[in-house]
Amino acid sequence: MPNYKLTIAYDGTRYNGWQKQGNTEKTIQGKLEAVLERFAGQYVEINGAGRTDAGVHAKGQVANFKLDKAISCEELCRYFAEYLPEDICVLSAKRVDERFHARLTATKKHYRYCICNNAKHADVFNRKFEMHVKEPLDVDKMTEAAGYFVGEHDFSSFCSNKHMKKSKVRTVYGVTINCDGDKIIIDYEGDGFLYNMVRIMTGTLIEVGLGQRLPEDIPEIIARKDRQAAGFTAQAQGLFLMEVFYE
Amino acid sequence: MPNYKLTIAYDGTRYNGWQKQGNTEKTIQGKLEAVLERFAGQYVEINGAGRTDAGVHAKGQVANFKLDKAISCEELCRYFAEYLPEDICVLSAKRVDERFHARLTATKKHYRYCICNNAKHADVFNRKFEMHVKEPLDVDKMTEAAGYFVGEHDFSSFCSNKHMKKSKVRTVYGVTINCDGDKIIIDYEGDGFLYNMVRIMTGTLIEVGLGQRLPEDIPEIIARKDRQAAGFTAQAQGLFLMEVFYE
Repeated sequence: MPNYKLTIAYDGTRYNGWQKQGNTEKTIQGKLEAVLERFAGQYVEINGAGRTDAGVHAKGQVANFKLDKAISCEELCRYFAEYLPEDICVLSAKRVDERFHARLTATKKHYRYCICNNAKHADVFNRKFEMHVKEPLDVDKMTEAAGYFVGEHDFSSFCSNKHMKKSKVRTVYGVTINCDGDKIIIDYEGDGFLYNMVRIMTGTLIEVGLGQRLPEDIPEIIARKDRQAAGFTAQAQGLFLMEVFYE
Repeated sequence: MPNYKLTIAYDGTRYNGWQKQGNTEKTIQGKLEAVLERFAGQYVEINGAGRTDAGVHAKGQVANFKLDKAISCEELCRYFAEYLPEDICVLSAKRVDERFHARLTATKKHYRYCICNNAKHADVFNRKFEMHVKEPLDVDKMTEAAGYFVGEHDFSSFCSNKHMKKSKVRTVYGVTINCDGDKIIIDYEGDGFLYNMVRIMTGTLIEVGLGQRLPEDIPEIIARKDRQAAGFTAQAQGLFLMEVFYE
């Protein structure tokens, strides 16, 4: 069956996340499937690479779907542009190998967390796209702490889903922190991330930046394999799924 | 009477502009006055420097108001931060000379217009903060055209208000155009701007950038003193009142 890959950007503010949850929920997947159904004349399931939460954004979400017959990718893109709401945009569509699966064949993901730091007021223009932390953060300490995340670890302490029975071992390839004025940008790359993992790592780094924890506490937090050991879950609106990589 | 100057940022998306128009309208002035009334225990009129339209934003709007008795600016700022909606922010408040009037004593204003150019799709994150022009714009030609706006002119051709009887002579100090990737930023500085003037100048520059007009057409357009002679009114959402200057 012809298999299609979509690259998608969205402002997640108005949505209950990527994944469809029943009929009435307002999700990115649901919006895309509704337009695709209209285009294809039948319901078609779309698989997303990352199940972003309510309020989380994407600049490069990837999804795929299969159809009975081949279609024109250009025509499909124009159709999405016409019928999708203005906060969801299909950046590109292309036909891919039948074995391609947006989630299962992904080899690396890049998430970004944006913080507005040490500004007296939240930025009215970026309020949906960053977390405002009023108190000054020690970025050197945060960078030191972030180094401990890198590598293959059991990230149970950084997972909100207690009922998940699958392995919680993931490999973090890198965490880099950049500052630009009052903006702090944290980039995470890894082979996969558990439910809320990026937000809990970010919350923990913020606590380090505030001096509430030490960088060298991180290995112990990881070793505990207990959600209670880690920091708070940073707000959804600061998080972006930037890119998904494949072989 | 004690006189206070406010500097204000707002995302104008949800509002019917700055100026109050009856009781039911949702305006920036109305929101600010409602909070101030609560603080002061009585209705107090707030004068804004620029009457931004519906959907127009501000990073440095200035306003002033007078009170019977002196108040603490710090306390007032905290009060605004607590009671204003998250898309309006009082950046600072300070007591000023009694003769200060946000609009009447302003000597210069800086407006910025933001365009997303030559990108296949509108940017989902900036869709409320820029105008998307799909076709490539010739920025050199636009810059050449912009030069003709500089100086003291009767800008009747660039004013949407037909019933305005006051002088339409204004002095534009400078128009500069900068590009950064697919973003085009046009900065306008002048002693004052007529109703829709910045948006009509921008629409006219876009028409020049598209090759529909020539840069050297501008002097003739100005000379005509006729709204019909100029270009279209660029969308409200790309416009920002950046700063207001005083002696």
